[in-house]
Amino acid sequence: MAKKFVYFFSQQETEGKKEMKELLGGKGANLAEMSSLGLPIPPGFTITTEACAEFSSHGNTYPEGLREEVHTQLEKLEKLMGKKLGDAEDPLLVSVRSGAAVSMPGMMDTVLNLGLNDRSVAGLAARSGNERFAWDSFRRFVQMFGDVVLGIAHHRFEEILDARKNSAGVTTDVELDTAQLKTIVAEFKQLVRDVTGQDFPQEPREQLWKAIDAVFGSWNNDRAIKYRAINKITGMMGTAVNVQAMVYGNLGDTSGTGVAFSRDAATGENVFYGEYLMNAQGEDVVAGIRTPRPLRALEEQQPEIYRQLDEYKNLLERHYRDMQDMEFTIQEGKLFILQTRNGKRTAFAAVKIAADMVKEGLISNREAVMRITPRELDMLLHPNIDPKQEYEVIGKGLPASPGAAVGKIVFTAEKAEEMAASGEKVILVRKETSPEDIGGMDAAQGILTATGGLTSHAAVVARGMGKCCVAGCGALSIKNDGTCTISGRMFREGDVITLNGSTGEVIPKALPLIQPEISGDFEDFMKLVDKERTMGVRTNADTPKDSLQARTFGAEGIGLCRTEHMFFEGDRIDAVREMILAEDTAGRRKALAKILPMQEEDFVGIFKAMDGFPVTIRLLDPPLHEFLPHSDDELRELADIVGVGFDVLKRKTESLHEFNPMLGHRGCRLAITFPEIAEMQAEAIIRAAVTVDRQGVKVLPEIMIPLTGTYQEFEFLKPVIEKKVEEVFATENRRVEYKIGTMIEIPRACLVADRIADTAEFFSFGTNDLTQMTFGYSRDDAGVFLPDYVEKGILPQDPFQVLDREGVGQLVRMGIEKGRSRRPDLKVGICGEHGGEPSSVEFCFQVGMDYVSCSPYRVPIARLAAAQAHIKAEENRKK
Amino acid sequence: MAKKFVYFFSQQETEGKKEMKELLGGKGANLAEMSSLGLPIPPGFTITTEACAEFSSHGNTYPEGLREEVHTQLEKLEKLMGKKLGDAEDPLLVSVRSGAAVSMPGMMDTVLNLGLNDRSVAGLAARSGNERFAWDSFRRFVQMFGDVVLGIAHHRFEEILDARKNSAGVTTDVELDTAQLKTIVAEFKQLVRDVTGQDFPQEPREQLWKAIDAVFGSWNNDRAIKYRAINKITGMMGTAVNVQAMVYGNLGDTSGTGVAFSRDAATGENVFYGEYLMNAQGEDVVAGIRTPRPLRALEEQQPEIYRQLDEYKNLLERHYRDMQDMEFTIQEGKLFILQTRNGKRTAFAAVKIAADMVKEGLISNREAVMRITPRELDMLLHPNIDPKQEYEVIGKGLPASPGAAVGKIVFTAEKAEEMAASGEKVILVRKETSPEDIGGMDAAQGILTATGGLTSHAAVVARGMGKCCVAGCGALSIKNDGTCTISGRMFREGDVITLNGSTGEVIPKALPLIQPEISGDFEDFMKLVDKERTMGVRTNADTPKDSLQARTFGAEGIGLCRTEHMFFEGDRIDAVREMILAEDTAGRRKALAKILPMQEEDFVGIFKAMDGFPVTIRLLDPPLHEFLPHSDDELRELADIVGVGFDVLKRKTESLHEFNPMLGHRGCRLAITFPEIAEMQAEAIIRAAVTVDRQGVKVLPEIMIPLTGTYQEFEFLKPVIEKKVEEVFATENRRVEYKIGTMIEIPRACLVADRIADTAEFFSFGTNDLTQMTFGYSRDDAGVFLPDYVEKGILPQDPFQVLDREGVGQLVRMGIEKGRSRRPDLKVGICGEHGGEPSSVEFCFQVGMDYVSCSPYRVPIARLAAAQAHIKAEENRKK
Repeated sequence: MAKKFVYFFSQQETEGKKEMKELLGGKGANLAEMSSLGLPIPPGFTITTEACAEFSSHGNTYPEGLREEVHTQLEKLEKLMGKKLGDAEDPLLVSVRSGAAVSMPGMMDTVLNLGLNDRSVAGLAARSGNERFAWDSFRRFVQMFGDVVLGIAHHRFEEILDARKNSAGVTTDVELDTAQLKTIVAEFKQLVRDVTGQDFPQEPREQLWKAIDAVFGSWNNDRAIKYRAINKITGMMGTAVNVQAMVYGNLGDTSGTGVAFSRDAATGENVFYGEYLMNAQGEDVVAGIRTPRPLRALEEQQPEIYRQLDEYKNLLERHYRDMQDMEFTIQEGKLFILQTRNGKRTAFAAVKIAADMVKEGLISNREAVMRITPRELDMLLHPNIDPKQEYEVIGKGLPASPGAAVGKIVFTAEKAEEMAASGEKVILVRKETSPEDIGGMDAAQGILTATGGLTSHAAVVARGMGKCCVAGCGALSIKNDGTCTISGRMFREGDVITLNGSTGEVIPKALPLIQPEISGDFEDFMKLVDKERTMGVRTNADTPKDSLQARTFGAEGIGLCRTEHMFFEGDRIDAVREMILAEDTAGRRKALAKILPMQEEDFVGIFKAMDGFPVTIRLLDPPLHEFLPHSDDELRELADIVGVGFDVLKRKTESLHEFNPMLGHRGCRLAITFPEIAEMQAEAIIRAAVTVDRQGVKVLPEIMIPLTGTYQEFEFLKPVIEKKVEEVFATENRRVEYKIGTMIEIPRACLVADRIADTAEFFSFGTNDLTQMTFGYSRDDAGVFLPDYVEKGILPQDPFQVLDREGVGQLVRMGIEKGRSRRPDLKVGICGEHGGEPSSVEFCFQVGMDYVSCSPYRVPIARLAAAQAHIKAEENRKK
Repeated sequence: MAKKFVYFFSQQETEGKKEMKELLGGKGANLAEMSSLGLPIPPGFTITTEACAEFSSHGNTYPEGLREEVHTQLEKLEKLMGKKLGDAEDPLLVSVRSGAAVSMPGMMDTVLNLGLNDRSVAGLAARSGNERFAWDSFRRFVQMFGDVVLGIAHHRFEEILDARKNSAGVTTDVELDTAQLKTIVAEFKQLVRDVTGQDFPQEPREQLWKAIDAVFGSWNNDRAIKYRAINKITGMMGTAVNVQAMVYGNLGDTSGTGVAFSRDAATGENVFYGEYLMNAQGEDVVAGIRTPRPLRALEEQQPEIYRQLDEYKNLLERHYRDMQDMEFTIQEGKLFILQTRNGKRTAFAAVKIAADMVKEGLISNREAVMRITPRELDMLLHPNIDPKQEYEVIGKGLPASPGAAVGKIVFTAEKAEEMAASGEKVILVRKETSPEDIGGMDAAQGILTATGGLTSHAAVVARGMGKCCVAGCGALSIKNDGTCTISGRMFREGDVITLNGSTGEVIPKALPLIQPEISGDFEDFMKLVDKERTMGVRTNADTPKDSLQARTFGAEGIGLCRTEHMFFEGDRIDAVREMILAEDTAGRRKALAKILPMQEEDFVGIFKAMDGFPVTIRLLDPPLHEFLPHSDDELRELADIVGVGFDVLKRKTESLHEFNPMLGHRGCRLAITFPEIAEMQAEAIIRAAVTVDRQGVKVLPEIMIPLTGTYQEFEFLKPVIEKKVEEVFATENRRVEYKIGTMIEIPRACLVADRIADTAEFFSFGTNDLTQMTFGYSRDDAGVFLPDYVEKGILPQDPFQVLDREGVGQLVRMGIEKGRSRRPDLKVGICGEHGGEPSSVEFCFQVGMDYVSCSPYRVPIARLAAAQAHIKAEENRKK
């Protein structure tokens, strides 16, 4: 049987339906569907995407049978309409529109009024009794056809039109009279002749085939190909072509055209809104020459039409079960629907609509959850630049942490804290940041760095803080004289800039920001999300403040509490340095004893904030040299504080220097060399736990050993910690439940995970480091080649952003399988940056993790991603 | 059935055999075996190691039945000898000796003459007709028993003896008369009474049981436990106890005792040699008071005894199929064999004996190959300090590269080259070495560094050069004034030191060295080795000189030719730096064009040296900053050379700085950013190949892409190289066979090896980097904690020395399996340091590698290890 290439649609006979998007495109499938529903759709037919595919793959020739099928369907349309295409007396006019399965800019869009020529224009004038309308339609047709089918630059037509308006002394098209329009049409046709060397095609069927060719051809034009590449759209055959009888909104004062949304696309409110123009064709609404009227005005002006429209709106929303964006035309008091599709909306509206539709019983909980993308949620969680605002961009870096920030430039963390303390809003501008800058980063509105990638210190910490950050802005150069240049322009401390962390843009002035509102709808929606979620979501938090923040975002515990950040605060750093510089265990224990009560206090605060939830605390991880100052001046200062000679200090810092600190003396390696550090931390954790337990707080501490690579390391340290814990229990005469587990972040740990699980009670995958070591990429250095790798297609994306399932994921899966082979109830989570990235969260769900952990501001995103992963799995299971 | 705990041996009746070493110990099994062979062995019985084990595990009590069994066997011995233990008229005397399955110092050794007491000494005197002999025996017995059984310090007896010799005015024991001996025995017994509070045991059976207890107990004394721990001896049950009738070499001039070796233990020559003393007991030979006579003197003195001994020697060597170390006693003209065992020998002798025994048809090829340890071969391949030499050690570092070296201290590579050029032997003394020191390292006799581990630059390069190196000598401190101190002692440039790279010792003067002789026997042996070997052995070599050297050691091609070393030579470094500093591709190409002919020439030399064998050439691997100078002065100099401003240069070097260079912009990442570098190298390789091919050299180039982590990297670079190769073929109008493959050294590469093998034609495992990334250890930094890890048992050994089968090995196995799943004939090798380490070579064989590649001086070791691995596999297969 020959393939069917053309599908007819009308209220009388319709061959397609909405499920046939692949074949008929979105527009064609919806036209067919609406026709079946009995809506007033001008009839027509759709040429399939398959026909387009065969056209493309056979050197732009039609597949066998297509020509005949189109003619047959056209004749059916002519018969139904009682008019013939191009008829001199009563011509049938049609629109020709492209329409792929996914809406896609870049392809040829629309030709209206096809079928007009020097003869039929008279017939149209006669039948409509409106000569000006007929010539206006002809003018529009020649212009559109000339532009999109014949490829003559749009402005060439506009120039002729403007010249005529000038010489007529008018400003808008509607003021041009019939005679003037006739002159313009003649001039347009001359332009066509000049550019193409041929007359404007008079034969209506030739017009039709040329238009079809143009739609087919536009599937593979550069813009369309590029768009598909950028948006990773694959697997589509081609575009469909919709040929549809024309209806006219420009037939006089009882005609008009408009667009309508079934709900407010900005707020999501369940109100019917839109706009329309009387006596106009579609493009007039868009062109902005006349101001369209709000839809509610139609209720007064044409109550019956409005009632019908409202009825169709309700019908379509119920039918499509989503907010609809409709186009309609009123032709001499009769309403036609030209298109419907799911409406675009703001993130805010999306959340409200989803939540409302569940309440209304229109969609299921699952559908609502699947309708919001994690990216949309992200937008709700940060202040942003008003999208209507236009602005100059002076530099661009990486969009390291979303949201926007406005503030005065400062170049040091101290200055940031100082100015913030006096109520100023500041932006911390640094070549790069280091752990010592934490205070300043916290005080700043946003952070801008010259170097570093999406996983640089600045980026990671900023995301953790939910704070805007633009990182690796190559155009930024910081001078030593308290100034910087961005793309050559000089800025001083105190100059105001705006950062857009969602785009990486740097704007050289203050812009107004929209503050996020986490309204009741958002909360309602998150409740829906949690109903569909089976995997836990925890947060990475090092302070009571962050812990509380994360609780408000729905975190169910802490998956990673880094203890080293605590080491930098206030006077502690002195004690920490004293510990590092101690000559022997006794000296270290003495210094550690000073740190103990401070750490204990930290944990008390965090445990209280996480009442009822588990808190995973990682023992000291970074190499010790990170805690020492680097410049000679700072070293001299420190020498005075700790009472050690400068030379001794200098020698000590040099002896701690490492060629590859990432692969150096850190993590559990430190604890094995200096068990007293782990002992102090275990004591602080358990003391704090016992303290809050006495106060009635439900505390579930999980002590986590970092950087385990051999089971022997874990087996060495676990008893060291247990001994200390038991000592505290004995002294305090009170016990609490606790666990001892490990980070899995060294490739080898995945390979011997079975043996590690023999003693470890939980695993937390540290996929930042695991990615570094599995790929052999240093996060701090890979910025030099990673963008190039992504561009050249060597990597699909930055593996520090999206977990590499093929490589790193293989190790993660192996680690879990091996671990659970020995300990079936092994608790498994992830605490790297990936824990808040939707695709990675989905992977974590697929490999059976118990929870993901991410920075507080990404907790809602992780909750959504986890719920969606579960829904997808359930749906795949059903198949 | 009750366990049998005691095994009798005599020429009439023997219950054991040589295969029962586990149960009877080495000594007991051999005594039984020799008895069965009809050799004149004094009869006796052996108490099993099992009895010892039960004794130990049951709180030092005898297992049920042991006591009765010993008494039964003792009575059998008494009956056979016609004497009774402790009989006042004609006492049976016995020796009691320990003997585990593996010879093991630290345990109680020997008690002779057991059974003597105040009464039986008279009987012995009467029966032997030699009262002095009887009392001498009694004196010896009390002393030995007091020492080893009763635990009275040896020197307390010696003091009494010395006092008596003094008062008698004599210097040796043999000069003491009977009366004096009686006094000494009395004094000895008083000593026993004083120390133990009890009389010396007179009851012979009590003496026997006390001696048995002492042997059993010594199995678990501190020294024995420590010895087993250090030597990783596990799985043994305990020690056996041998109770044997005494024979006497001290019964007069027709009595004597001696030791004999069936071949020369030093040279391996097939000559019968040894030494003996007449009228002496065993310990006299060892004590060195009288000078023993060479065995050949016995031929004249007692030709019949010598003839018998020679006959037994031949019998035993044929029977045990190895060189024998025998102990014998002549009692009044009658020869007794007291012990035989496989003799210890020098590495040189071991090789000769193995080769000779194959020629003699005594052992099989396989047996010969299995008898030499890789460590023994290693000793043959380096000059060494004469082991007889005594010397002062002033500092100790890591034994980084074996052998010894003597020379004058120099502190810079330049000075080393300069002095070596004028014929001086120098030792390069550095804090650490870098690639720029290569020339100086090559010029020096040996290298001494203050920092760095066994896989530091100095260590790796020195091993590659087969040059002695002591690395990480903490006692060494280098000053800026042209001096250094070692353990506080000052040395100037020009002072002579000796290094022992096999032990890590630094000796503050010149010592004479023994040069290795790779004699005909060595060659013969290696031929035997190669007959048993199935896996190939290649070498890592970067120069024609190294390549030729490796060929003489039997390398079958080059597994790793690093091209970066070539970049440092002579003027090349300037062109290399020009390339790095170029602003664009054109500038880089210009500089690369200068390097091209030089690289081509290198390859011509290497290909010629490796005529007929494959040569794997790795494209540029290290990060570019390694080629730039570090100090401002050097940068200024370079600025002049390349004609670039100092500031620009400084900025460029800073921009190339990396936090973790190991994980940075290197390997194929460089080639992807700058394909022109790979193109130049491919061109140089193929040009050179075509050139030598024209000259009739059989050339098999293998172009190796380093650091592949994703198959996309390989798929990107392979066509870049192929295109350039085809260009050369076209220009030259000649083709050669070649392959393009990759290093597998990134964990991720193992995980996606199937996909990589789709395009890669060979894999070469770079297990140095693979170990670094799998463990997350930086070779340059891990020295801080690795020794501690090994000491604490967290790691069984340094994984950079011995491949970690459990973790890294798992990835290697996976990589091979996945690779061959797509390309069954995938050629697989290893080119890390592990390729020359015996246990790692065995693993490479087990996972099915085609070859291992190692530094030239380790090629013979790898050949042996490969052969032994094959033999073991074959033998396991047969089981």
